[in-house]
Formats: sequence, structure tokens, C-alpha cells
Amino acid sequence: MKKYLTLLLALLFLQMSLSAMAAQAIPKAAAAKDMAENTFMREAIMEAMAGIHAGHGGPFGSVIEKNGQIVGRGHNMVLINNDPTAHGEVTAIRSAGKTLGSYDLSGCVLYTTGEPCHMCLCAALWANIDLVYFGCTIEDNGLIGFRDDVFDNLFGGRDQLQNYLLSLDREACLKLFEEYNSMERIIY
Amino acid sequence: MKKYLTLLLALLFLQMSLSAMAAQAIPKAAAAKDMAENTFMREAIMEAMAGIHAGHGGPFGSVIEKNGQIVGRGHNMVLINNDPTAHGEVTAIRSAGKTLGSYDLSGCVLYTTGEPCHMCLCAALWANIDLVYFGCTIEDNGLIGFRDDVFDNLFGGRDQLQNYLLSLDREACLKLFEEYNSMERIIY
Repeated sequence: MKKYLTLLLALLFLQMSLSAMAAQAIPKAAAAKDMAENTFMREAIMEAMAGIHAGHGGPFGSVIEKNGQIVGRGHNMVLINNDPTAHGEVTAIRSAGKTLGSYDLSGCVLYTTGEPCHMCLCAALWANIDLVYFGCTIEDNGLIGFRDDVFDNLFGGRDQLQNYLLSLDREACLKLFEEYNSMERIIY
Repeated sequence: MKKYLTLLLALLFLQMSLSAMAAQAIPKAAAAKDMAENTFMREAIMEAMAGIHAGHGGPFGSVIEKNGQIVGRGHNMVLINNDPTAHGEVTAIRSAGKTLGSYDLSGCVLYTTGEPCHMCLCAALWANIDLVYFGCTIEDNGLIGFRDDVFDNLFGGRDQLQNYLLSLDREACLKLFEEYNSMERIIY
């Protein structure tokens, strides 16, 4: 009887360690994506993941939605394009402009993995985007080495935009940031 | 004697009216350019003039200088590219990034016909541009129909950037704005 019990316990431990190995083998990208509750934020995370693994820039991905459809998407391409303005939001706005054949993105909603800097925020306003959902905060951006927090203080904050900027799926986006933070990378 | 005096007066009036006609015939573009004292601002004005007459967007031209050479230039292309982010400054920054093969524009100075909005100002900061010279003010931009002043109030101003943003050749740039204001145009 004791022999069977030992065997049972051994099998149980074997199964537990196999499960743990399988969990480790799940790509972090998928993990971060799966953590996001919102479909569009999931897409933004996947955009960012593609960008960081291709060495294009920081962990910032964005999608633009209109009437339930994605009309624009993009990720940070500052490094690959030598373009300091190629943040994820700017890239997505340019993409949506092309898709819709208009500089006026009224009726569109922007989903982005990191709270927009003043450049991207003002770009969203110029584009007449209705609403912005962001994952990680300005402070989170600062913690992985970007100067968003410095510039934000310089300009005096965003107090008047509280109804325009809404937090969404921060935990999933922090997972993305965590992955980026563990990689070899250039901060600009 | 009276006959000669009359003839003299007639000749004087003829010369005056010919001069007036010649003055009218000088393209306003050249007039605005010639009013600018600074070489780089002159180039920025010519960029803007080319842009408005091609119907590309607002009267905003920019050049970027490094060690006395122009390394980037551009004008507003919001309308022609359906790109709400294609302000003159952003276009010039992207152009300089290409020329220098870098996202880091340290050592560069930006000259622009209208005081940069928060998008362009923050873009200049991300690009590590040393200094920004502007012609017309944020208020001047507002007076010809653009929302720079609205957004500026929303973000809480630019008090901490007084040493970064310097006024230059405003009168010449106002001439450019005046020309734009007299044209058929789309405000975005």
C-alpha cells in the first residue's frame, strides 16, 4: 500500500513540475495579451510586443478604433526610423488617417499601452480623437527609462484632461513593460 | 515756366504710380522673406509659402540647423497627407533624422514660422533639439483659425520653457500669415 502511495506522490510531483515548466514556456507576449480584458488593448499590446522584439523602439503600441473596427495601428519606431516623433500613438494616427482618407479622426478611440506624452496627447487632440484609453501611466513610462514624466512636469500636467484620458488594463501593460525592461535595449 | 512745372509734376506722378504698381507686383512671398533678418527664418518662410500655395496645409514652415548648415526642412502637410501630425516642425524633425541618420538631434536649432504647439514642442524635446526660434506667436496662430491657443490653455502653458523658446522675425512671419489669411483655405 505504501509503495502505491509513494508512486502516486511521485506522479503528482512529476505532473506539478511539468505544469510549472509548461507555464514558463508560454511566451510572455501571450501572457501579457491574455491578461488584458479589452480586445483593442490586447491588439495594442501585441503591436508593442512585435515592436520591441524587432528592435524598433520602446514598448508602446496603439490601435485606433472606429465603430468597432480597427482603422489604425502602430508601434514605436523611433530607433528603426531615426524618427523622434514615431511614437506608437503618432504611428497609429498616421495609419488611421491613411485608412480613412482624412485628417479628421472624429468618432475614433485610441488605445495605447503607455499613457501618451504631450506630443501624442496633443496629436490626438489635433486629430479630433474622441477618447484615449491607456495602460501604463506616465510614471510607469518613467520607471522604464523614458522621459515622459520629466516633460509632463515641465508642461504642468494634464489636470484638465481627466475625462479624455482613461486608464485600462494597466496590469497587462505592466507585464509588457516588465518584459521590455528585461531586454537589452537603447533608451532615447 | 508753368508748362514745365506741370510736365514735371505729371512725370513725378507717373513715376510714383509706376513704383506703386511695381511694389504690388513683387510677390508677397518674397516680401515676407525679405523682411526676415535671419537666414534660417527666411528659409522657413519660403518653406511655408511653398506649402500654402501648393494647398498642403497651414502657413507653417520649419528648418533645422546644425553647425551653420540646414540638415532638415519641412512645411505643414496635414491636408495633403491626411496626417494630423504633419506639422511643419514634425516634418522638419523627421527630415533631419533622415539626413543625420539619428533620432538624436542634439546640437540642432529649430526655426519655425509659428510658435510650436505642444505636439511640436514635445517632439523637439524628445529629439534633444537645443533651441527653438519662432516667428508668430501661439496667439497669432489662433487669430488665423488654428487651435494652438486652445490646446495651450488646456495644458497649462509653457512658462518653464522661456529659455528654450525664443521670438525671432515676427513681423516677417505675420506677413506670411496675412497672405495665408487672404487665401481660400481649409482649417483643420
